[in-house]
Amino acid sequence: MSNDNCQKVDVSRRKLLAGGAAAATAMMLGSEASASQINNAISWDKTFDVLVIGSGFAALSAAIEARRKGLDVMIVEKMRVPGGNSTINGGLFAVAGSELQKEEGVEDSVELMVQDMMAAGRGINHPELTRAIAAGSPDAFKFVVECGAKFKPKLSWLGGHSVARTYLTHNASGSGIVRPLVKTARREGVVIRTECKMLNFITNDDKRIIGIQVKDGYRFPDEETGIVKHFKARRGVVLASGGFSRDTKFLSAQDPRLGGVIDSTNQPGATGEALRAAFRIGAVPVQLSLIQLGPWASPDEQGFGVASMFNIQSGFRYGIMVERATGKRFVNELADRKTRADAMIKNVKESGEPDYPIILVDSVGAKACPTLDRCLEYKVVHAFDRLEDLASHYQIPAEGLIESVTAYNEYVKNNDDLELGKPVSTATPIIKPPFYAVRGWPKVHHCMGGVEINPSAQVLHSETFEPIAGLYAAGEVTGGPHGASRLGSCAITDGLVMGRIAGNSVARNDAI
Amino acid sequence: MSNDNCQKVDVSRRKLLAGGAAAATAMMLGSEASASQINNAISWDKTFDVLVIGSGFAALSAAIEARRKGLDVMIVEKMRVPGGNSTINGGLFAVAGSELQKEEGVEDSVELMVQDMMAAGRGINHPELTRAIAAGSPDAFKFVVECGAKFKPKLSWLGGHSVARTYLTHNASGSGIVRPLVKTARREGVVIRTECKMLNFITNDDKRIIGIQVKDGYRFPDEETGIVKHFKARRGVVLASGGFSRDTKFLSAQDPRLGGVIDSTNQPGATGEALRAAFRIGAVPVQLSLIQLGPWASPDEQGFGVASMFNIQSGFRYGIMVERATGKRFVNELADRKTRADAMIKNVKESGEPDYPIILVDSVGAKACPTLDRCLEYKVVHAFDRLEDLASHYQIPAEGLIESVTAYNEYVKNNDDLELGKPVSTATPIIKPPFYAVRGWPKVHHCMGGVEINPSAQVLHSETFEPIAGLYAAGEVTGGPHGASRLGSCAITDGLVMGRIAGNSVARNDAI
Repeated sequence: MSNDNCQKVDVSRRKLLAGGAAAATAMMLGSEASASQINNAISWDKTFDVLVIGSGFAALSAAIEARRKGLDVMIVEKMRVPGGNSTINGGLFAVAGSELQKEEGVEDSVELMVQDMMAAGRGINHPELTRAIAAGSPDAFKFVVECGAKFKPKLSWLGGHSVARTYLTHNASGSGIVRPLVKTARREGVVIRTECKMLNFITNDDKRIIGIQVKDGYRFPDEETGIVKHFKARRGVVLASGGFSRDTKFLSAQDPRLGGVIDSTNQPGATGEALRAAFRIGAVPVQLSLIQLGPWASPDEQGFGVASMFNIQSGFRYGIMVERATGKRFVNELADRKTRADAMIKNVKESGEPDYPIILVDSVGAKACPTLDRCLEYKVVHAFDRLEDLASHYQIPAEGLIESVTAYNEYVKNNDDLELGKPVSTATPIIKPPFYAVRGWPKVHHCMGGVEINPSAQVLHSETFEPIAGLYAAGEVTGGPHGASRLGSCAITDGLVMGRIAGNSVARNDAI
Repeated sequence: MSNDNCQKVDVSRRKLLAGGAAAATAMMLGSEASASQINNAISWDKTFDVLVIGSGFAALSAAIEARRKGLDVMIVEKMRVPGGNSTINGGLFAVAGSELQKEEGVEDSVELMVQDMMAAGRGINHPELTRAIAAGSPDAFKFVVECGAKFKPKLSWLGGHSVARTYLTHNASGSGIVRPLVKTARREGVVIRTECKMLNFITNDDKRIIGIQVKDGYRFPDEETGIVKHFKARRGVVLASGGFSRDTKFLSAQDPRLGGVIDSTNQPGATGEALRAAFRIGAVPVQLSLIQLGPWASPDEQGFGVASMFNIQSGFRYGIMVERATGKRFVNELADRKTRADAMIKNVKESGEPDYPIILVDSVGAKACPTLDRCLEYKVVHAFDRLEDLASHYQIPAEGLIESVTAYNEYVKNNDDLELGKPVSTATPIIKPPFYAVRGWPKVHHCMGGVEINPSAQVLHSETFEPIAGLYAAGEVTGGPHGASRLGSCAITDGLVMGRIAGNSVARNDAI
């Protein structure tokens, strides 16, 4: 192959811009162009040690960790404010072997959390990633507390978990972690550049990622806005851009049912273009068709809303879910998300329209919901003095509903759900009015798939299955740790733990 | 961006080689390099109108169709002989509304076949592809008959199909179609280049695929062999390289259980590198984690073997499958592949080792198996005079087995399988010795996922979801038509129908 030195500068400049230049490199064995020569060829608008794409749990953790190694770090976020989907996350954070578990007398271990995550994941998790996440959870919890995050003083026991191991942020929202992390990052010198959209990765002849091409001054979702710029990353790039729950076409490609009729809990910016760009420079696509529907959402509000927390904290644990048409329970209300969502979406009317199931709880169970006031204010959850009124409001056969409640109360009394096997040891009977109820319907919530990484958060290449030099990834943009279904409250753990690992890995990389 | 004309030749030459050069093009808006200029820059080793990657059902159909439009066509196949996995396919070919159905009085329609394929696919098929396949099936059948393929004179009724609609080649093998197609292709002037391995796609500044980089003289699996060459495609490239059932690392990434413990029915060359190269030039990855296990394979031979045909034609239709430990049936033997395989792999011993279920049939049912002699000769299927001997050989509790057979014979008599809902209207009771039996175990059989195409077999790009100019794909390398589980005997239909569409689409493309 020709290696005409007089033409090197422009060759390099252009090839650097190629999304898949890494693929070309293997074919250019005759080339003598070195990385440093190529670096000199492109006109970089900015240079940092580390560039982080995205600004949620994983991105912020990676940025802070890398910054604490003395590196110059910039976060690139396409939306107007940092935080991404993490800001509207429910704030539930699973930790294996926490201080609060010791206080509450809960026995837990990394092994048990891995088992729970693998069971929910139907055994097709990448086990080394699952383990890394569970193992890193106590330290990640300390990390965010030291950054200023505050948590409620009682653990939650969520569906699919063998024990109570889930913290809840003081404001019942992921923003309770995002805000302290943003503050910490800024205070410690991380640059956060918003309205800056990632377009493509830039590689050198050694197949190493050396920077990114962006649209700076971009105003979502107006694709006509922004100016193309090139940012250099001396140590590497951390891809932490989240999932593709709002990426309608890509979502439809994986599951045509999800292209419109089923809403998403995610923020509008979860559009997946950085993930797709990663495939074009060789990232291995993993388990993309495994898309989680959140079973606790309501069709009567947009996105995650307020009812989701009601169902998670009160409805499913202390109440029951029944078919509208019969008043009968039809699934263990604490089964994992996939089991519940699959059962719920089978409830369709003869017309083919959804027949939304109803989740109900009494006033004792409702106390566990930290957002009950808002649920009522927004008229998503309704209160009823009598079960008959509740049945009438939702057009449930009253007899069927009362039969279900009576049977369930008996199961609670005997600590044995003979019907559906729900663990009811901490449940309370549905007795004391007012009764609270909400219509439920699953929403696209989490993308289990993404790019393949190893436990050091290095992204693997589809030609060699070896790490792509200079590229790291963490959080929802990666695939594998959660298998077929992510267990509730493990997204924060994933983002924080793997983000911190990515930040430390990129800091260990040689500078170019 | 600089646009230094004096450096154009080498720039183009190099950028052309980039696997992801298409991604770069969008960034080179300032460039004035035209496609024709770039074409002149690379030194092509060969030039054809159409290049086809792979040589199975889809590839051969595409090549013949394009050739019949008067084009110069070359097939590129990395193995020593053409045919790929199609050669060892079982030769079952589903056709909706065939001549033989009319003769046999079977009522069928495209709509019914689509319904069956969608039901097996759990409703997440790309419906426009499913429909295209079913609709094209009668013509595809005529096409291969005209090429010289011969079929047995009786239809098979396979699991998951509402009616008997499946032809079987005269030699009960896909080679019964592949050989006539290879012969036809050669006779009509298609060049078939074996031992030639696809490495990367080559694109021009218009993002159009204009050729491929290969290793010519490659001897599988020795990666040190072969010489790098560049072949130009004036009209376009048809990707028909099949699935990735032998691509251990990529398979493990999608489902870690499949990386070794579960065998595959596929030929060793099903290693997926052309599929992975397509992702690097922007092909949209679709449903890659949906991987089909064939429920009819045996652990007592390698690959598809001879027992698979025994189980498909005799065992599952005229016999029963029982757990080794109990002698009890556990799944409708004619349920779709996913249902059966999922049920089978739950049979594990306490040690965690597989506890292979046993499939058995009597001598009447065994007559339907065209390969019985070889099954016995290879000692995969065994014959027994009494059920007690069969039970003893496999260490099944005899009482449990006989109970199962007795109950089943009663279901057949009453045309109602009260236990598992198997359709038994054409079944015969298990009465007449000798009894034939085989150990069963699922094997990786078909990759439902691949690149996204539209019904014209154009490959879509992950940045725009519009067709990648000059790139077409057909058959197992594509994703979507079969959803979560491909219905048996629809692989030939898919390959032939979509291959023919791809061949006609590429022929309509403008030449460069």
